[in-house]
Amino acid sequence: MGEGILFERDKLIRFHHCDPAGIVFYPQYFVLFNELVEDWFNHGLQHNYAEMVSGQRLGVPMVRIETDFLSPSRIGETLRLTLGVKRIGRSSLNLLVEGSSGGTPRVRAHQTIVLAALDGLRSVPFPPALCASIERYLVS
Amino acid sequence: MGEGILFERDKLIRFHHCDPAGIVFYPQYFVLFNELVEDWFNHGLQHNYAEMVSGQRLGVPMVRIETDFLSPSRIGETLRLTLGVKRIGRSSLNLLVEGSSGGTPRVRAHQTIVLAALDGLRSVPFPPALCASIERYLVS
Amino acid sequence: MGEGILFERDKLIRFHHCDPAGIVFYPQYFVLFNELVEDWFNHGLQHNYAEMVSGQRLGVPMVRIETDFLSPSRIGETLRLTLGVKRIGRSSLNLLVEGSSGGTPRVRAHQTIVLAALDGLRSVPFPPALCASIERYLVS
Amino acid sequence: MGEGILFERDKLIRFHHCDPAGIVFYPQYFVLFNELVEDWFNHGLQHNYAEMVSGQRLGVPMVRIETDFLSPSRIGETLRLTLGVKRIGRSSLNLLVEGSSGGTPRVRAHQTIVLAALDGLRSVPFPPALCASIERYLVS
Repeated sequence: MGEGILFERDKLIRFHHCDPAGIVFYPQYFVLFNELVEDWFNHGLQHNYAEMVSGQRLGVPMVRIETDFLSPSRIGETLRLTLGVKRIGRSSLNLLVEGSSGGTPRVRAHQTIVLAALDGLRSVPFPPALCASIERYLVS
Repeated sequence: MGEGILFERDKLIRFHHCDPAGIVFYPQYFVLFNELVEDWFNHGLQHNYAEMVSGQRLGVPMVRIETDFLSPSRIGETLRLTLGVKRIGRSSLNLLVEGSSGGTPRVRAHQTIVLAALDGLRSVPFPPALCASIERYLVS
Repeated sequence: MGEGILFERDKLIRFHHCDPAGIVFYPQYFVLFNELVEDWFNHGLQHNYAEMVSGQRLGVPMVRIETDFLSPSRIGETLRLTLGVKRIGRSSLNLLVEGSSGGTPRVRAHQTIVLAALDGLRSVPFPPALCASIERYLVS
Repeated sequence: MGEGILFERDKLIRFHHCDPAGIVFYPQYFVLFNELVEDWFNHGLQHNYAEMVSGQRLGVPMVRIETDFLSPSRIGETLRLTLGVKRIGRSSLNLLVEGSSGGTPRVRAHQTIVLAALDGLRSVPFPPALCASIERYLVS
């Protein structure tokens, strides 16, 4: 059985991510996770995220997320984010997202996202071509 | 054995919480959760949150959060948030936060927060008086 | 000639508004200004903002804003925001928003907002009833 | 007299920048402007922004900003931001920031930022080496 690949992106920790303790304010990690999924669609899956949202009026809302904050991230650090797919459902995906800086784990999240029509918010099955692209990222 | 109380706050879902699907962008729930903890310290625990942060340089960073998004929240809705304490550790708390609108569950989060010195980020035991206030919110 | 009234709201400066300097990160003032306009529509003009956005698909995008940051706001402070109308156009409004804390000026903004259809973003004239409500806030 | 150069950066308009109208929520432009100044310090001025903030405890708070929103930005667009210096004071800078997409102007802002100690927030004169770097971006 083949092993999937991880999608990877580096994010600079910026002033606007940080709180009065000088570390990333935790809701900002979720904004970065959203960027990562966007980047994955655009560059990993070759599926234009903006066109999906504006043109087809489809989105990938979060259904469930379990997050461990392992150590604080500070301004100026580069956060390396990786994304792998743990399970592909008819219209849902289980993702594992991990963030580290200089090799030190910072954050780990198990996410469940769903493909859904933005108007009405009912779930929509993944089109076969998109499904095939997603499978490349399926990690055991 | 006595049963604890829930801390409760209503939050208006505003334009700035919502995304192009017209529903709350999920990271914004975490900003609202942060407001709720702030309100709980100020009004439930009678422990001045701003003074704790600015004066004593203590904070309550999130260590782990497990969140289910049960149904979408829309602009103009009132999100009723409740907070109960599930476990009190030496310097950590397990909280259950639930949000509903018009009786319909919207979001549920199991959170672990830690009392920590902002400078250095080492954990700090809860002072006895604060601990006693927290115990009133211990729900089984 | 009669003098209009000011719309007024107090906003708590929260942890999530503040940056690593421990003061309000300036883009957060604009989020608070947006809340103020929302509050003004709901409570000052008695015009349901959420219904306007979701039901009628109308909004009030910012066209121009000139802002002076007069002194920093800190966590735990109450920011008193006032809003007055300087000019009423066919579909635009010039607003003066001022924020102070404990009598000390913090921020002052001259804003131009426009009533616009969200789909297509063309400007829309104010309905006469709304216009009449707005006129009560016209200050010289 | 020589003509200065413009600092330039492209920013992807992301889902998290957009509001229920599907366009950039205007406070998000200010977050992008803050990123631009950060990028300018790091890559234009070769002055490490994070080290300045965390190490030297200096920042560049906004004192005044005048912004025209010329046309809406949509998800998936690339916003080209340019920054030029209009005036260099002892501890303040007047900047002109312009954003366009596909050649169409989107936003224009005249900004005044000040070099300031984060603790105490008193202004600090620009060190001569930094001043010399800034002068390269002085445009008439």
